[in-house]
Amino acid sequence: MSEEIGVLVEQILKVDKDENTAPSEALAEQLEHLDAEQLALLLGALPLDERLEQWERIPADEQSAILVELGGDTRLSILRTLSFAALESLFAKLTPEELIELSDDLPDEFIDIALRQMDQKQRQHFEHSNQFNEDQIGRYADHSLLVLPQNAKVYDALRLMRRDIPECTDALFLTDRAGRYTGTVSLHKPLSSPGHIPLAELMDEQVKPLAAEVSLEDSVDIIEKSDYVLLPIVDQKGMLIGRMTLKDGLQILRESHDAEMMAQAGLSEDEDLFSPVLRSSMRRATWLGINLLTAFLASWAIGLFEATLQQVVALAVLMPIVASMGGIAGSQTLTLIIRGIALGQISKGNLWPLLRKELSVGGFNGVLWAGAIGAIAAWWFSDPMIGVVIGSAIAINILAAAIAGVFVPLILDKMKIDPALSGSVILTTVTDVVGFVTFLGLGTLLLI
Amino acid sequence: MSEEIGVLVEQILKVDKDENTAPSEALAEQLEHLDAEQLALLLGALPLDERLEQWERIPADEQSAILVELGGDTRLSILRTLSFAALESLFAKLTPEELIELSDDLPDEFIDIALRQMDQKQRQHFEHSNQFNEDQIGRYADHSLLVLPQNAKVYDALRLMRRDIPECTDALFLTDRAGRYTGTVSLHKPLSSPGHIPLAELMDEQVKPLAAEVSLEDSVDIIEKSDYVLLPIVDQKGMLIGRMTLKDGLQILRESHDAEMMAQAGLSEDEDLFSPVLRSSMRRATWLGINLLTAFLASWAIGLFEATLQQVVALAVLMPIVASMGGIAGSQTLTLIIRGIALGQISKGNLWPLLRKELSVGGFNGVLWAGAIGAIAAWWFSDPMIGVVIGSAIAINILAAAIAGVFVPLILDKMKIDPALSGSVILTTVTDVVGFVTFLGLGTLLLI
Repeated sequence: MSEEIGVLVEQILKVDKDENTAPSEALAEQLEHLDAEQLALLLGALPLDERLEQWERIPADEQSAILVELGGDTRLSILRTLSFAALESLFAKLTPEELIELSDDLPDEFIDIALRQMDQKQRQHFEHSNQFNEDQIGRYADHSLLVLPQNAKVYDALRLMRRDIPECTDALFLTDRAGRYTGTVSLHKPLSSPGHIPLAELMDEQVKPLAAEVSLEDSVDIIEKSDYVLLPIVDQKGMLIGRMTLKDGLQILRESHDAEMMAQAGLSEDEDLFSPVLRSSMRRATWLGINLLTAFLASWAIGLFEATLQQVVALAVLMPIVASMGGIAGSQTLTLIIRGIALGQISKGNLWPLLRKELSVGGFNGVLWAGAIGAIAAWWFSDPMIGVVIGSAIAINILAAAIAGVFVPLILDKMKIDPALSGSVILTTVTDVVGFVTFLGLGTLLLI
Repeated sequence: MSEEIGVLVEQILKVDKDENTAPSEALAEQLEHLDAEQLALLLGALPLDERLEQWERIPADEQSAILVELGGDTRLSILRTLSFAALESLFAKLTPEELIELSDDLPDEFIDIALRQMDQKQRQHFEHSNQFNEDQIGRYADHSLLVLPQNAKVYDALRLMRRDIPECTDALFLTDRAGRYTGTVSLHKPLSSPGHIPLAELMDEQVKPLAAEVSLEDSVDIIEKSDYVLLPIVDQKGMLIGRMTLKDGLQILRESHDAEMMAQAGLSEDEDLFSPVLRSSMRRATWLGINLLTAFLASWAIGLFEATLQQVVALAVLMPIVASMGGIAGSQTLTLIIRGIALGQISKGNLWPLLRKELSVGGFNGVLWAGAIGAIAAWWFSDPMIGVVIGSAIAINILAAAIAGVFVPLILDKMKIDPALSGSVILTTVTDVVGFVTFLGLGTLLLI
């Protein structure tokens, strides 16, 4: 399936280059078979000119569904080229839920155009969701619900169920007159109960509604543990404002994984393959700048030993090995601890046994690699003392890496900074500086 | 919720240290309120002795459910201490589905003990699932199905639905006499149809069953696009062998994310906070060894310029900056391309426009940081030529990083190697070597 898109991209760009060839009917037909998500991926894979050309070919009534699926930068690149009238007719087809999703990464002027297209009720809907922030599940509450008044009977439920049931639904919700959530009834229950029984008697007391303020991540954990494929979302006043489904959970997990992967490289999750050069460059420059500061720290550490380096140039040659071994060993401990923090497994209670274990592992690998690298270096530079210096530095740096690997993420977590994003930069700064200072310091003591 | 586990770990270890204190009743009560998953996290967060102690306290009828939730190393650490009789009674409670999950990372001798506890039918069940490998959805097919013969009527469906319906079910499946899958009927349909209508008339023709050989990753994509919360799984002969649910999809996504994060640091997904030191050390040593080879490559590149370094020691001091800027810029391109490959967006067709764009971004940041770093270096070492040398090297290395960032993942992907796992190591080797050779080479030409 996914390879298909690459092939289509190739065909489109080929047709485009060779202007004599008219777009073949076979290609047009293949494009018609793609769903909104695949078309969105295709558009994101095309350079700007070809992207706009293809966009124009998409029937107007399919465009809004594709718009929702597009990545942030791809979407913006298209919207910026449309006329005001075209924007108006495109946005007129958006539901409030779709507009909320777009609003996470669309400038306000576009949102305003869309809001002006909506009726009173839809606008209220949007405003209501918009009061929650981008990490709260209430913002993304889906409004396709089966709802009945709390005094409804089994036959009311059966009548409701005979009509169209929204996708991903295995329960209905009861509310009081004001719209406050009062309970959840499995759709299975009314089937095996007499018609006059009040639904309130069939309520599943185990179901706890999701508070609208719950974070996206926590909401996935909660729905995964529930016995249903959907959960009611309620606001602070207890009003039933919508639902979250297992399918929403899948989407949240995917997006958070994607955002994390991009953020680890200092990229925005909106970035696409053909984001504008200037915007990409400036975003990436920030991350390069942060990393430059840490690189200067490492240089400064080396600079302390200029005199030594001048006398023993072998030290300069071997420096990357000391830094690299420390960085790798440290990131292994770091990864393990970050996972432990995310799972809530780490506390003051097991910190010391954990550090002891990581130091033991570091001790084993420190001795192993100190011996191996020391021997190679001694042979390379025909000087046993060089072997002693680099071996000791490697052992010390791997132990320091174990300590940093445990404490860097814990300290970041205490400071409310996500260790998965910045842990690695800080850790390698520590192992670089410790590695260079130990290595060149020992070199100064033992070789000069 | 997750912080709770950390607090409990602390309390357990405190009680344990201070032997006069008996385990408080409050603690025992808190432990009773944890579900199997939380207890598994708790056990994984305890050092071995305390882990075994807590395991003994868990009622025998809850142990097997917890066993399934444990991480690979944690599980093994407990099983290894149990007597044969204890293993037998523990395994006697496992379902074939649970045993399949355990078998992914449990030595055969344990599986054999468990199989001997099962009856003929359960064993067949296990063997049937076991014919699929660890990346095929058929292996994990869940057998809680609503199934009816293909000639069943609406009233048969209603009768079935009045009994207990398995969790995560919004459709029933029809099979022929031999057990071959013939169709899917939404549970909603029989509710609004007369009793004598054959279910075959209500089948949803859109539903395509999942082939048992489909990879776990693809199966998640497929169920996410389907209109149901479950899909039938069929083998090559068309036999209905089980189902996959959206909840399975969530679990697969979580586990693959976890495994990827661990693998990127050269860790096993089975590794837990207190895995045995020797085993951890040896696993991690492999990854350190691979990285050592790449570090030696960088050292070798530096070694080519020993004479230069001896004369201009400033070059040794500034080396980490050249390597670091190249590595960071390269990993930004790499991350973008890896995502593009995963989404199927990259092909021969858009390769050149993509490279052009990445080179433009690299050109922008190359010029920006060449200027900034060149100026700082010139000032630091009071030598404008040093600024020229490092500035040029940075610009060249950032451009080389863009090229490597595009091609390294594409080549790995062609070689069927996951670029998300090894791309970063290879990329930084390239940027290290190119950076050092350019920087020291230019230094040799311009400074001596």
